[in-house]
Amino acid sequence: MKTISENRAFGGVQGVYSHPSEVCGCDMTFGLFLPAEAEHEAVPVIWYLSGLTCTHENAMVKAGAQAWAAEHGVALIFPDTSPRGAGIANDDAYDLGQGAGFYVNATEAPWATNYQMWSYLTEELPHLLFSAYPLDEGRQAITGHSMGGHGALTIAMSFPGRFRSVSAFAPIANPSASEWGRKQFTAYLGKDESKWAPHDATLLMKKRGFDGPILIDQGASDQFLDKLMPEALAEAMIAGRQNAMMRMQKGYDHSYFFVATFMQDHIAFHADALYD
Amino acid sequence: MKTISENRAFGGVQGVYSHPSEVCGCDMTFGLFLPAEAEHEAVPVIWYLSGLTCTHENAMVKAGAQAWAAEHGVALIFPDTSPRGAGIANDDAYDLGQGAGFYVNATEAPWATNYQMWSYLTEELPHLLFSAYPLDEGRQAITGHSMGGHGALTIAMSFPGRFRSVSAFAPIANPSASEWGRKQFTAYLGKDESKWAPHDATLLMKKRGFDGPILIDQGASDQFLDKLMPEALAEAMIAGRQNAMMRMQKGYDHSYFFVATFMQDHIAFHADALYD
Repeated sequence: MKTISENRAFGGVQGVYSHPSEVCGCDMTFGLFLPAEAEHEAVPVIWYLSGLTCTHENAMVKAGAQAWAAEHGVALIFPDTSPRGAGIANDDAYDLGQGAGFYVNATEAPWATNYQMWSYLTEELPHLLFSAYPLDEGRQAITGHSMGGHGALTIAMSFPGRFRSVSAFAPIANPSASEWGRKQFTAYLGKDESKWAPHDATLLMKKRGFDGPILIDQGASDQFLDKLMPEALAEAMIAGRQNAMMRMQKGYDHSYFFVATFMQDHIAFHADALYD
Repeated sequence: MKTISENRAFGGVQGVYSHPSEVCGCDMTFGLFLPAEAEHEAVPVIWYLSGLTCTHENAMVKAGAQAWAAEHGVALIFPDTSPRGAGIANDDAYDLGQGAGFYVNATEAPWATNYQMWSYLTEELPHLLFSAYPLDEGRQAITGHSMGGHGALTIAMSFPGRFRSVSAFAPIANPSASEWGRKQFTAYLGKDESKWAPHDATLLMKKRGFDGPILIDQGASDQFLDKLMPEALAEAMIAGRQNAMMRMQKGYDHSYFFVATFMQDHIAFHADALYD
């Protein structure tokens, strides 16, 4: 593991580290905020998965999450959104390839070689983090923005018992039915839509739901509302009598200003579950 | 005035606007955060001046100031740090030319043509802002980071009665005696050091001080401490029996993580003065 940078922030440390990833076949970079409490005990963890075009860095510098994580004594993990590098498959489009891994294990060429974000985030990176840092594996929560909200919801529902709570900011809620999803699932997973279902939050909600609370914020002025399809997820949550809150936030768009505005609520929501 | 972007944030609006500047001879861009209160009344204002290499954008997206400004019902102004554009004089160094205006009116070629940041920030931009937006000219405060801390302190002391309070994050405190100052003042103002004195916070403190409270935060692990010279300003503040607090913050460096960490305190400090 290589230390890229460490800055004191809000009484703790905001670090950036890189490591060779076996499943992605390249070096991967992540951000980790450790609150002051981590100096003497293992602290609970909130995973933050980012959206299209983002690296580990965007949320780390723009979401204002450390202030609230410090207040609640919670660590934050900011993974990257795809494998990266000169030798890694890519596409000119902003929504495919590097910066757009969609949190799946690709099975199709040329993506399958490196695009193994599902295994990276659910196996390799947790294994590394929980052995290297004072993080409490028994107290995890997960959140994310847009494509990252999709990742957070699908991962949370796929590993019952692992996450105490899940939240999302403007998640891609029904990718199998959306422009943000169909194109990428076809490229990464192939044309057989049955392979897509485990990566669609709405379909997972219909099938099994989540055994904890869910908080979703959605900007009512989001310029991508038709691609996000929160209405499909809302319907599935209601039908499943899921413990959930979805808030339409008047006037807010898809930007980090939206994310930053409601970050305090999301961290407090997760802290409630993590310190239960 | 041209609207570049407007995003709802923390119940208010984070806008970015550009306008032709007469004194700088080019288009200038600034950020303006208006809290919800601005919908029905003129609100108090905090100016935030940025440091070397920054545009209007850095603090606007990385300092986390809007959360606290919204809490106190205060507007934030984020000006640029220099004139900009293809036809504007520049230098290869990060600390001279575009992104490094040092908040002075240049008198030397080639800078004098456009580098009139002092007049821009103390005359042209305030005139424009207070006529175009619901901002209360009678309730202003000013802050800044590094080169912007230098700008905030020198402007505040040069316009008695205009600002109720001034604060700074790791300001360039004694530029006449520093690598961050001597080079730029020579370029912009010429070799006659008597022309530099009105732009040196330590010398202004010795000469006249500030008729309100001052708050200064300085990271104790700041990698640029020898260029910032807070000790010179501290000595002058003590000799002048200035109403001031300077805090050395253990472990913090010069980054925006440091700025973001103490932003809540600075906004609360100014709000106390603005709502007095």
